[in-house]
Parts: sequence; C-alpha cells; structure tokens
Amino acid sequence: MRNVKVLIWGFGAMGSGIYRALASIEHIDVVGVIDQGSKVHQDANLLSGITGVSPLLIQDESILDTLKADVAILATDSFVPNSFDKIKRCVEAGMHVLSSAEEMAYPKATHPKLFEQMDALAKKHEVSILGTGINPGFMMDALVIALSSVCVSIDSIEVIRRNSLSPFGYAVMEEQGVGLSKEQFNQRMAEGKLAGHVGFNESLHMIADALHLKLQRIEITNEPIISSVERLTPYAHVQKGHVAGCAMEAIGYVSDQPMIILRHPQQIEPSAEGIDTSDEIIIRGMPNVSMKISPEVDGGIGTIAMIVNSLPALLNAKHGCLSMIDLPLPRFLNRDILPYLHVEETL
Amino acid sequence: MRNVKVLIWGFGAMGSGIYRALASIEHIDVVGVIDQGSKVHQDANLLSGITGVSPLLIQDESILDTLKADVAILATDSFVPNSFDKIKRCVEAGMHVLSSAEEMAYPKATHPKLFEQMDALAKKHEVSILGTGINPGFMMDALVIALSSVCVSIDSIEVIRRNSLSPFGYAVMEEQGVGLSKEQFNQRMAEGKLAGHVGFNESLHMIADALHLKLQRIEITNEPIISSVERLTPYAHVQKGHVAGCAMEAIGYVSDQPMIILRHPQQIEPSAEGIDTSDEIIIRGMPNVSMKISPEVDGGIGTIAMIVNSLPALLNAKHGCLSMIDLPLPRFLNRDILPYLHVEETL
Repeated sequence: MRNVKVLIWGFGAMGSGIYRALASIEHIDVVGVIDQGSKVHQDANLLSGITGVSPLLIQDESILDTLKADVAILATDSFVPNSFDKIKRCVEAGMHVLSSAEEMAYPKATHPKLFEQMDALAKKHEVSILGTGINPGFMMDALVIALSSVCVSIDSIEVIRRNSLSPFGYAVMEEQGVGLSKEQFNQRMAEGKLAGHVGFNESLHMIADALHLKLQRIEITNEPIISSVERLTPYAHVQKGHVAGCAMEAIGYVSDQPMIILRHPQQIEPSAEGIDTSDEIIIRGMPNVSMKISPEVDGGIGTIAMIVNSLPALLNAKHGCLSMIDLPLPRFLNRDILPYLHVEETL
Repeated sequence: MRNVKVLIWGFGAMGSGIYRALASIEHIDVVGVIDQGSKVHQDANLLSGITGVSPLLIQDESILDTLKADVAILATDSFVPNSFDKIKRCVEAGMHVLSSAEEMAYPKATHPKLFEQMDALAKKHEVSILGTGINPGFMMDALVIALSSVCVSIDSIEVIRRNSLSPFGYAVMEEQGVGLSKEQFNQRMAEGKLAGHVGFNESLHMIADALHLKLQRIEITNEPIISSVERLTPYAHVQKGHVAGCAMEAIGYVSDQPMIILRHPQQIEPSAEGIDTSDEIIIRGMPNVSMKISPEVDGGIGTIAMIVNSLPALLNAKHGCLSMIDLPLPRFLNRDILPYLHVEETL
C-alpha cells in the first residue's frame, strides 16, 4: 500500500497548522499546497523548516491540472456556497475532500440543494466529502450525540461553550464587537455587521437528525456581554460598561418546547469577572448528564486535530457527502495512517 | 418494513430494565423472555403491568426451538466463556446478539480464540454480535476514544470513575469487601474472593486498538478504601478504620511508560468523607483535555441505555463480532426504531 497523498488548499492559520500536524504522521505525503494570499510567501519559509518534509512550492489553482492527490484538505472558507466550486473541482479530479468550513460540518442544514449536488458528485466520482472541526463538528454536536447514548429518555439538551477571545487579533475583535459601547454594538448588529459564530444551524440539525427529532423552528439571538470592569488585551481595550464580547444563543424547538439549547458566550479576558472557560453539555432526562471540559478545547488546535484525525475515516467511508454522524467513533490518528486504513481500501 | 423482533435472555435487573425501556419504543416487539431464576415468577407479574405490551410468558431455553427473533439480548453473564454457548445458539438460529456481559464489550482482549470463533460464526450466519454497557462499553473506553479526536498529540490518558455502592445489596457488598477489616480484605483478596470491577482488560485493549498503541504489559491492582468515619447503608455497616470499598486501578504501559491509567474507586457513602461521585477523563497532550461528568452516570440505567440505544447500529452493521469502535457515533434511540434503520436493511 502506497502513501496517502494530500493536497492542502488554503494556508492560513488552519491550513499551515494542518500541514505541520500531518508532517509528524507516517505514510502521508503532502504533495501540494494552494494559496493565493499575501501571507503565503511568508509562511512558505516555514515549510523548509519542518524536518523530514521537503520544501514545497506553494502554488495557485493551476496545479490542479497536473497534480494527483488522494485527498484535498480545504481550509479556505466558512460557508458552503464559497466552498462549492473548489470542492467540485477536487471531486471531479477524483479526490476525497476534507473541509474545515463551518457550514460543511452539516451542509444540508443551511444549503440542502448544494448538499444534494455534492452528494451526487461524490457518488459519481466514487469519493467522500466530509466537513469537520472542533465546533461545529464535535463540541456542540458529535460529542453531544455520543453522550446521549447513556440515556433512556431525554427532555432537553443544553450545550455551553465559554471561550476567551484574548488570543485573537483585530479582525475577530471587530467581528464580535469587542470594545464597542452597547449602542454601537446594537447598531452594528442591526446592520448585520457582526458575524459571530458560524455553525449553530449545522449543530442543531446534526443533533436533531441523529436523534430523529423534528425541529419546529430555530431562534438565534446575539447579545452584547457588558463588562463591569476595564479589560485589556494587545488588540482590544474595553472600558467599564462597554462590550467585552458577544453571547450567541440558538434554540431548537420541538413540540413548542426548547429541546436543544446552544449557548456560546465569547469575550476577552473572561477571568476579569471570574468566568472560567469551558465546554459544558447538560442533558436533562433519565439519567441527567452533566459534563464539563475545563478549560474549553482551543478552537484552533482542536479544529486542526479534528481534520487530521478524520482522514482515515474519510478514506474508509462509503462514497457521498458525509458528516460526523455517518462515521465510526472519532479517534486520535497516532503516528502512522496505514494501520487505520481498511485492507479493502485500495489507494 | 415489519417490526424488529427481540428476545431477552436473562430477566434480572438488566434484562427487566431493558424490557421496560424497549416497551416505550415503536416498531419493536419483545417476542420472548428466557429466564430460569426464582426471581422470574415475581417479575413476570410486572410484565402485564406495562401498557401496550401483551403479557409474555417467561420460558426456558426450549422456546429457542420454535421462536424466531431478529435480535437476542443477553443479560445473563459477565464473562465470555459463560456467554459463549448462549451466543452460539442464538447466532445459529439466525439472530443478531447484543450482550451486556462486561467481557463481551471487547472479547478479543481476554478471550482471543473465542472471539475468533464468534466472529466466524456471525459471518457464516450473516448476523452481528455486539457487547456494550456503561462500563466497559462507554465511560472508560468509547468516550475516551471519542475525546482523543480533539488532540494532535497524546502523552497519556487517565480515566477515573468514582461511584457509590450505597444503592447495592448484600451480594455487591461481599464482592467488594465492604465492612471488612483491612486484614480480612487483604486475606479475601489473596484468596481471589473479591470480584471487583470486570472490564479493565477490555477497556484498555479497546483504547489501545482504536489508537493503535502497542501495550507492553498491564498491571491491575486492588486496594481497600479505609474509612476514617463510620458509614452505614441498609446493607452495610462500616466501622471507622474498616473497609468502605475497593479502589481498583489498571495501567497499560507503552514503551515502559504508563500510557493508559484507569482508576475505579467504589465505596459506600463516599460523601461521608467529602468525595463527590464522577466520571473523569484527563488526556495529557496537545491540547490537554480535562473532562468531568458529575455525578457519575449510574451503572444500571446507563447499561440499559447503552444496550437499547445500540440496537439500530447492530442491525445496520456489517456481519461479525463487533465492538463500539466498529460502529458509528453512538446515539439515543428516540421513540421509534424505524427511522434509524438503513433502507437497504431487510428485516
């Protein structure tokens, strides 16, 4: 069995992190990297610094005409429509696709028609497509579903992911409204200028489909987190009484009751008001289940891990556009991909 | 598609609990119950009390000559050798088998030859065999494996299941040495008269196989938990300085380092000394993951849930003797089994 050939498309924080993680795994060759941003040329220097991996020439999309890989890892977008043409091109070239785009974690949730097209394309070309990441992809959906298996009845599910925005830069501060007054925050929100978390719709539908719950409606809200103290990071300054972050919440209703409640408060310096970061899952039912991971699993490294660790399952899977609920129990990819691959799989 | 027909073999706490849980799920018919214990005739009265389910005649094994079910649920044993003949008989009658026997959660760990025989038998008769439960089956193995997927590197894994023995009766108190002096405990332990937890070997091998870790050796130890206060339950009285329970520990070594550490302290009235019951998973690596479920998921209801919720995955699975790591993400079976079954599955 020969090595698994991987193409990485997108070489920002995710793509380059995935590259570094793959470099430590045997029987995987990164045969190409596509990126067009200005950051590429700086990062390209990093490549030659990784032991045991020959320096790669970062190229533009034209290498797709000649390059043959088994899997394309896409780390370029957050949304399905932006990803679609890239995925189509890779699938038509006979490559499996692994995407870190949030909406790709459960594309049928927001884009059922594009999902159908991707599913048909993947089946036609006998490959698999999977989107995953720490959230959506695991913390607010796959892990919730796994924990539901200890229950004989479930009344409601609540998931809370409390994280710190302190490590992030200006772009994230602006997307989340950090440092604004409450009035400015509300105005930007009304204008649709605050992005917040992408993935609530995907997580809600993944849980609902896995547990065969019929969602009546979904409510998504977005409130400013007003700081009662001054908070400071290298990229943000929040005055007392101003916005330290953004508390998003999504509720999926079944039979007029809130059945799945997802809360995702994100702010700088949460410890300034005694708030510990964490991932919590609370299932009310028989039995009640109350789980807490503290501190929360970091979004950056967690997403890189979910992508890299999902490679064997993607290669072993049936063809089509899949999600975490179609695949075996996720697991850490330890050092060498070969033992993870089914013998019937021919590369 | 017709209803799924289930036979329950064993009608103690597990079997009767599984029966009650199945009664609330549509498109499942319990077509027979086998039990030979004296408890049966008391419990038989319960059956007619369950709404919507016709009273069943609890019978002996001879009903296997005439009865045709899709799945046999075995809740009779803890060990593979005792289960083997029952499993063989059910498989030869064309039934899938779902077992709550602890060793069946990963039979190849302790009984590789019997595992091979069961796997061959299941393939020959085109059925699937699965053992599961809360532990082994989930808390100290499947959930650990799922959480490992957020890591890009792992140095060690520690799992702690702290539970209370207070709800249990005389039999469990005796198996765990509750109420003995330290000297009596050590003597009984030396004589092999204290059973403790069955499942460490299974959980260790399941994790090791899923993550492709080569276990060098396994150490299992068993220490008395000495109470510094008097403790009392309806079935046990522990004097100050005597044994309140039993702290079992299993360590799996990789390259001379403790790689997987499983701790399972069980005692009556843990709150008497300020101990909260919980399930904890601590993965040291990149990133560190520290998970706690508090209180612990109850062993009885949790095992009933794991068995019932695994039914669809068992019916959808490839043929052979399987474990939780061969199956899709486990999930709650909500109300009706039909939507969970693959269309290609013909019952």
